[in-house]
This record gives sequence, C-alpha cells and structure tokens, in this order.
Amino acid sequence: MKVDGKNMRPIWFNRDTRTVQVIDQRFLPHQMIIKDLPTVDAVIHAIKEMVVRGAPLIGATGAFGVYVALKENNSRPEDDLWLSGQCDRLRSARPTATNLCWGVDRVQTAVSKASAGDARIQAALDQALAVAEEEAVNCRKIGEFGLELISDIAVQKNGQPVNILTHCNAGWLACIEYGTATAPIYAAFDAGINVHVWVDETRPLNQGARLTAWELGKHGIAHTVITDNAGGHLMQHNLVDLVIVGTDRTTRAGDVANKIGTYLKALAAKDNNIPFYVALPSSTFDWSITDGIADIPIEERDQDEIRYIQGWCKGKITQVLVPPLKSPAANHAFDVTPARLVTGFITERGMCDASEKGIKALFSDKFTTK
Amino acid sequence: MKVDGKNMRPIWFNRDTRTVQVIDQRFLPHQMIIKDLPTVDAVIHAIKEMVVRGAPLIGATGAFGVYVALKENNSRPEDDLWLSGQCDRLRSARPTATNLCWGVDRVQTAVSKASAGDARIQAALDQALAVAEEEAVNCRKIGEFGLELISDIAVQKNGQPVNILTHCNAGWLACIEYGTATAPIYAAFDAGINVHVWVDETRPLNQGARLTAWELGKHGIAHTVITDNAGGHLMQHNLVDLVIVGTDRTTRAGDVANKIGTYLKALAAKDNNIPFYVALPSSTFDWSITDGIADIPIEERDQDEIRYIQGWCKGKITQVLVPPLKSPAANHAFDVTPARLVTGFITERGMCDASEKGIKALFSDKFTTK
Repeated sequence: MKVDGKNMRPIWFNRDTRTVQVIDQRFLPHQMIIKDLPTVDAVIHAIKEMVVRGAPLIGATGAFGVYVALKENNSRPEDDLWLSGQCDRLRSARPTATNLCWGVDRVQTAVSKASAGDARIQAALDQALAVAEEEAVNCRKIGEFGLELISDIAVQKNGQPVNILTHCNAGWLACIEYGTATAPIYAAFDAGINVHVWVDETRPLNQGARLTAWELGKHGIAHTVITDNAGGHLMQHNLVDLVIVGTDRTTRAGDVANKIGTYLKALAAKDNNIPFYVALPSSTFDWSITDGIADIPIEERDQDEIRYIQGWCKGKITQVLVPPLKSPAANHAFDVTPARLVTGFITERGMCDASEKGIKALFSDKFTTK
Repeated sequence: MKVDGKNMRPIWFNRDTRTVQVIDQRFLPHQMIIKDLPTVDAVIHAIKEMVVRGAPLIGATGAFGVYVALKENNSRPEDDLWLSGQCDRLRSARPTATNLCWGVDRVQTAVSKASAGDARIQAALDQALAVAEEEAVNCRKIGEFGLELISDIAVQKNGQPVNILTHCNAGWLACIEYGTATAPIYAAFDAGINVHVWVDETRPLNQGARLTAWELGKHGIAHTVITDNAGGHLMQHNLVDLVIVGTDRTTRAGDVANKIGTYLKALAAKDNNIPFYVALPSSTFDWSITDGIADIPIEERDQDEIRYIQGWCKGKITQVLVPPLKSPAANHAFDVTPARLVTGFITERGMCDASEKGIKALFSDKFTTK
C-alpha cells in the first residue's frame, strides 16, 4: 500500500542486500524504522516482541524465518533434523496465531522436497515469497467480497457515511496488502463509498490508535479513534452500521480468537442488532479444533505492556507508568468470541456463516475430519 | 480512610484556614497534591477538570461550592438572585452526575431558610458538611449490606479468593469514605474475607489504574490491574465471581449511567451468569426519568484526553501522544447500562432489584410520580 506515495509492505525480501526486511511496528505512527532480520534469533525476536504482528504477517514472517535459518547456516542446508529444530523454535515464538505454524510448515515442506544445497535455500525463499504473495491476493479477494456488504449498507444510508467499527489492527500492516478487516473498507473507499471508521485504540499496545489510524490516515479515509470502552455506547445510539475485525485463530466451528476485547464488541453488536463480521484468509483456520474457549491457547504477555504506555513526547518515543509502581497487572493478549455472536466470515473464497456447516461449504477441500 | 497511617478524605473544610480543600486527583497515584478552593471559579474548575470526580464527591463539592460562593462575596449574602445564578453555574459544571444538582439544591434550600447575613454563610457551611457526612454514612451502610453478598460467595469458594471486578473508581476518592462499589470490598477485607479485585484501568483517564489501584494498595487489598478489554475473557474462564460498579445517575426504572465501558462489562457478566451489582447512595437516583439511554445526558469531553496519556516518567508527570497527530478522537465519558443487565442495587437502605418496583419498595418516600 502507499505511504506518502511510496509502495510499502510490512515485510519484503531486499534483492540488493539479499536480506529479509520489515517495518518495526513498535515505533509507528511516530517513527518509520526499517529492520533487517538476518538470523533466526532476529526473526523470533521480531515475532515475540511484536516488531511484526497480526496473524497473516506472523505467518509470512515465520515462512521467511525458515529461509533465514537455511541461509544463516549455509554449511548445513541438508541437515533436516537441525532444520526441524529451527522450525520448532519459529513455531513457538507466539502461541495464539495459527498462521505462524501454517507459514513455517509450508516452507519446511517445500524445502524437504527440494534437492540438496543451494536449491533448498532457493526453495525456501521461493515458498516464503509465495506465502506472502498468496496472503496479499487473499486480502484483495476479501476486500472484493466485503465490498458487497458495505455497498448494501451504503445504499440504505443514502449518502450518509457508513460507520464501521474495527478493533486492533487487521490492516495491511498486519497482513501484506489491504489487510483483512480493512480490505473491504479500502475497497469501499476506492469505489467512492462514503465510509467512516471507528478505531478502537486497543489496549494495551494500542494497535488501533497507533497502526490502524495511521494506515487509514495515509490512505485518506475518515476515521475517529475511540477508547475500547466506547463501542457499546456508539452502538446503542445507532452510530455503528457494521463491525469488522480480524482473527488470529478460528476453529472449524467458527469460534474466533482475536485481540482481547473483541468478545465485548461482539456482545454489544448482538445486543444492538448490528452485523458483526470477521475477515480472514483460510490460513487462519485451525481445522483441528472446535471449541475456541476450551482449546485455543491464549498468550499471556509481560504485565509492563499494560503498566507502561508508550507514546511521543518532545520528539522522542517515551514510556510513562500509569498505575502505582507496586500494583501488578495481568496481560491476556486475546479472547475468544463464540461463533453464535459472529454474523459471518469474509474469506478469500467469499462469505459464509460462522458455523461448521458454513465453513465446510466453502472449504470442503481443507476441512479435515476430527 | 487511611493513607500511610493518616486519615484522609477527598474533600474537607480546614477550620484553621477556613477554606475548602481537596486532593487534586489528576496527579494520583504519583503525586499527592492538596488544592484550596477559595472561589466559585475554583470549585467549577475543580469539577470540570476532574481535580475531583465521582458522583458523590461531585455532589459534596457542589454543596461546598454554595458556601464558597457566599463567603467569596460576603458583601451580598442576602442576594438570592445572585446566589441562584452562582448555583446554576455550579450545577452545570458537569452534565451527567445527578448528585451535583442534588448537593447544590440541598445547600441552596438551607441558605434560603436561614436568617440574613452571617447566618446564611454558616447555614451553607453546616449543610455542606452535613451532605458530606451523610454520604460518608451512606457509603458505610452500602458496605455493610454489600458485605453479605461477598460473604455468601466466600462460603461457596471455601477459602479461595473472591474475585471482584470493578470499573473506574467508585472508591473513597469518588465519595467521602469507603466508596460505593468499593465499600463492600473494604468491609469484606476488614472482616477477614479473602478478596482479590480485578481493576479495569478505565480509559481514557485511567481512574481504575490510577485511583482504585492506589486506594486498594494503600489498604492492603490484593488487586490486579487489567485493560478494559480483559473482563470478558476473565469471566469466560471463571475468574470473576462478582462485578460491582458505581453510577453517576440512575433512573427510576433502574437504568444506570456510569463510566464509559460499564455497559460492555454488564453484557459480559450476563453472558457468563456472573452477578453484576451497582452500589449507590440514593442521591444518585434521578427520580424524574425512566429511560436512561434516551434521557440521561452523556458528557462529551476533550478528545485530547484520549490522544494524550498521562503517567510518570523520570520523576515527573508526563503526557505522551499515542495516535497519529492528525487522527481525531471522540470522547464520550459515560454509557448507560439498561436495568435488564443489572442483578441488583446495593444502597444505604439495603439491596433491591434494578426495577421501578424494586426501587420503589425501598425508596417510596423519595419516589416522585411521573
């Protein structure tokens, strides 16, 4: 997507330096810092510390991680046991997004099928690039399908802005292009529809206020930052027409793990009869599980991500302590929204119900038996 | 309540200097700053800028404001028209909490009944002190009634901590003593019950993280700060036994205006069969209205309260900008929780259902006809 007129993605392969590079999202919107990922340790650090974040991007980063592993240790490109260990390390960098395992698996499988030596390194790079490209294409398709949804509401609103609420950042920064939750919004805006986005700031790491607001602003889309507390009130007063969020892992029955707080917005949407959609590429489905609340591992992160808030002060990134120094905090990073609260899924193959039956109808080829 | 061994209230009359003084809550928990309120302008500023906040304390501050008005202009203590204008200014300092009108009315009425001159000033002071004292007594009683609720859960939990979630600060800092939502918690702790409090940080002004965590910590009560997003997840996983919040205005039918985000917690409590109680002195009832969503005015505050977050950095209070400089924000300060989501009220006269019938049974003497 364009940033000040320049095409950017959140991750790319620099063919001049032959390195994997990413935008260090920890410093947005205040600083644009590009980071090299020359080693597996650097890739794992980038995933763990949220230099990169968002399920599809974590998947693509994991995919590039396998290439980085092979390149870093180019004396042992044929050592499958060693590579398997590196892949395990990559897969366990963060627990909730299923895309990470999917991305690593894809490249590991491609490597295992390649002939020896440099061909294996090249196979890893080709497959990682293919994963990233597929995610970009998937997001474009999600935008096309979701556009219909927004168009329908726009007709009803007769020129008044379509108010869309989103939580966290499921934008192009979280994906490769377009985003998932934002893809229909970009598509609608580009089609000339009057859209306005309520951006949940998304505590603790404020991916909404920092990243989604930045993305939308760079694209010229009207938006307003709100606290995570505000969505219910706005829905009660008919100020939200549609909710679209992303997901980090989705069960075969349609339960959705997404950034903590998503469940509360889904409850409010249900209580106010507002459509609540989840946009996702099929790489986010975990075909092996049904009950999201019981079976999706929820990451607990450092309490200081809550206690200290980062922002911009006098020309530099600054962190401030909010609660008393001695008060502890608990930092569950995701929650699970039960399928019963989800109006539907927007996928790269079209829309479907958030149910085993609905998902199976679109993805029968991927649906594994229990 | 005790702060480092010293008895404190959030507002008091200093008999030595004959001034009304308050804790400037904007700087807690990092700095304890005491502020004089020598003029009506200073009182209005303190209410508007949230030097003081919380419905019962706003009411008491408004009550003292009438005394301050008379004392400031002691050449015209008998000018009822002028006083009425000052009272109107005080009443409109903030729109949502009904206690403000109630406190100002109480003192204005007392003054109008007093004989001329100094007697009117003394009547104002006496009545303001009485308002504050009554709120303190009411909170103590709320604690006693709410204690039964927590005791019952404690028996079921058999020594395991009773986990109570609260939103914003409805503690002694918001009241005079004990608090409203916190009164049952203090009473339970003092009675030896094992309690643990989940403290919603309460964006945008973080009254939970800053004030509730500070109060509880000073009293030695186990607590954990969480983001406003986290409560639903905790409830899904049986980590919350009870929710208690305060209120800024409550309709005769039991709808509750409280800090923005309360509604979302009430929805989650309902969805998980967790009791959701609202603690309030009867000064918080607005007997004139029924439908809270339609009829309670919701204050919209400065967007920079969302965009800039205040905390402690290198030994001083610092503000950091979180979203892009050009992204706007919307700051609705309260939302309304419909009575259907409220398990019950804890009042100074006991507990009742959140319904017109339940409220009327306890407060038939105050219940005005439509």
